[in-house]
Amino acid sequence: MPGVDGGLTFPADALRKWAETVFRKVGVNAEDARLLTDSLIEANLRGVDTHGVTRMMTVYVKRIQTRVVNPVTRLEVLRDRASTALIHCHNSIGQPASAFAMETAIAKARNTGVAFVLTTHSNHYGAAAYWAMKALDHGMIGFSATNGPASMAPTGGRDLMLGTNPFAVAIPAGKEPAFVLDLATTVVARGRIMLYARQDKALEPGWAFDAMGRPTTDPHEALKGLLAPIGGYKGYGIALAIDMISGVLSGSKYGAHFPGFLADNMTDPTDVGSIFAAIDIDSFMDLEDFGRSMDKAMGEIRSSRKAQGAERIYIPGDIERETRTRRLQEGIPMPEQIVRDLTALGEELGVPLPRV
Amino acid sequence: MPGVDGGLTFPADALRKWAETVFRKVGVNAEDARLLTDSLIEANLRGVDTHGVTRMMTVYVKRIQTRVVNPVTRLEVLRDRASTALIHCHNSIGQPASAFAMETAIAKARNTGVAFVLTTHSNHYGAAAYWAMKALDHGMIGFSATNGPASMAPTGGRDLMLGTNPFAVAIPAGKEPAFVLDLATTVVARGRIMLYARQDKALEPGWAFDAMGRPTTDPHEALKGLLAPIGGYKGYGIALAIDMISGVLSGSKYGAHFPGFLADNMTDPTDVGSIFAAIDIDSFMDLEDFGRSMDKAMGEIRSSRKAQGAERIYIPGDIERETRTRRLQEGIPMPEQIVRDLTALGEELGVPLPRV
Repeated sequence: MPGVDGGLTFPADALRKWAETVFRKVGVNAEDARLLTDSLIEANLRGVDTHGVTRMMTVYVKRIQTRVVNPVTRLEVLRDRASTALIHCHNSIGQPASAFAMETAIAKARNTGVAFVLTTHSNHYGAAAYWAMKALDHGMIGFSATNGPASMAPTGGRDLMLGTNPFAVAIPAGKEPAFVLDLATTVVARGRIMLYARQDKALEPGWAFDAMGRPTTDPHEALKGLLAPIGGYKGYGIALAIDMISGVLSGSKYGAHFPGFLADNMTDPTDVGSIFAAIDIDSFMDLEDFGRSMDKAMGEIRSSRKAQGAERIYIPGDIERETRTRRLQEGIPMPEQIVRDLTALGEELGVPLPRV
Repeated sequence: MPGVDGGLTFPADALRKWAETVFRKVGVNAEDARLLTDSLIEANLRGVDTHGVTRMMTVYVKRIQTRVVNPVTRLEVLRDRASTALIHCHNSIGQPASAFAMETAIAKARNTGVAFVLTTHSNHYGAAAYWAMKALDHGMIGFSATNGPASMAPTGGRDLMLGTNPFAVAIPAGKEPAFVLDLATTVVARGRIMLYARQDKALEPGWAFDAMGRPTTDPHEALKGLLAPIGGYKGYGIALAIDMISGVLSGSKYGAHFPGFLADNMTDPTDVGSIFAAIDIDSFMDLEDFGRSMDKAMGEIRSSRKAQGAERIYIPGDIERETRTRRLQEGIPMPEQIVRDLTALGEELGVPLPRV
């Protein structure tokens, strides 16, 4: 997902400090404000602005202010085994809850080789990759997935019955950077359709359905209709499997039952369920050997012959990592409308947005 | 995947007995012949004829006869932890090796809640769903994935660098039948392209690339070219993640390094790596409660409004289960050419194919 460029550019550190102060101001404690902010700033740095301060700050603050999300984290381990845990999050902010869940998975995987942890009664947790990547420094493969409000129909249907239910896998390498895959189970995001609609541009076939569930390339019909899952029934199946595990098995909301978890819902707890898993590399191969093998495997992909017209073959995670390097230097870009919104938010709370 | 109809129809029991006898005749012991045959017959019953006796019998027998696959199963646990195991299969037949691996995963998950097992130096293991479904009777969610010979290019590339790397998830329900998802990471199978080529029929956009890696709807160009992954770079990422775990982490072949594992290779051991995982439902929710919740979730999907032109909304696994019910009654259909091939095979080995 390419970052939003244009507007003003904010140094990550200044933006981080501001966001933490804002969250503290609305009742989040220092540690949780730090965890929450880090997930947003990292998303912006990696170019995933849909999950960054730019898109999430205002709505997160509003949801905390209205107490539709509980600003005081309360986590309760309902079931606990050597390699699994079920964590009740009591409608806490998604990021502190998810940090605890992923740390639990990593600690258990260190003991037994692999761990699988579910959260229930949680909230929007940011980008799935952020949680999967937590495993990397521990010499582990990380996995995370989550359900969310319905935006997709089952194959053959036209009711919104499934979220985009994204999942992420992070695999460490040696000298090569880690493999980091993060994807929603729809072909394109709704934002992409909106962009085409504004330009009156035809969609590519296979992206969307109209309200009757028929394939369409008309972006306006698509906006009233449904996003298409990747690979047709295959993506529907993946989204449903994630919903059955993160939603049904965790005892959370699933399918069509979610109230929105962003600006569209300021009244009802959302009750998201999420998955956090870790696999200890050492259970299968010494970490250094694995790093060397991964470097070789990745090098072979990178140096394979390019398709006509392609400039480069990417490994998942490359674009986000390179964006992060650039944005750490150059700052996080923000469209003017967002700058105005965040300026207003800062004024309302007496925490002025840093000037750039 | 719809079954191949036409030709003759064989009762499953007779076909099973014949296949077991054939495998015994070429040096496979009784237990392994039973395991191997069951995976093939179950594939045929479920309509997945690409992994059944119909397509696999002749090639499996040939590979055992030439000893490119070791007919005597030898399994060695190289690494073993509370929730993980790495199993060296010494080029044994894929099915007995996989049966042991999945049983190991189930036994460990019973103790710790979840388990993750890898095999290395294994072979073609049949349909991924077969292994995931082994978990169902134990009140567990099953997962399996495997790598295999390259048939796909990375996004932006045109060299065959990745297998279709299928994966399967099986989730038990209550009164509803289990959810069983089994998919390759390409939009369509190569067999589908061949069918269109024979009919000189244009492919749908997004199915394939030509040899230069350019999108094509010409089935003849596609046959000289590449299958497209589901969701573009998303399917590429999923296939690569599976290869890095089942292939690289297990110490097996990966990427472009595979010799074929079917009729195209009668000389070199294939060295497939596969993944077997199980999650114990009771770690998160009492099994009966989970069954009730699954029934409700599946019922809601089934009864949601249909897209215009759709007759029914399927849950993954429905079509295969219904095909199985029908074929248990009516028998396993086999095209005439396959009947001739299997008749010849039976004559060669002195084990005549049952007459129908």
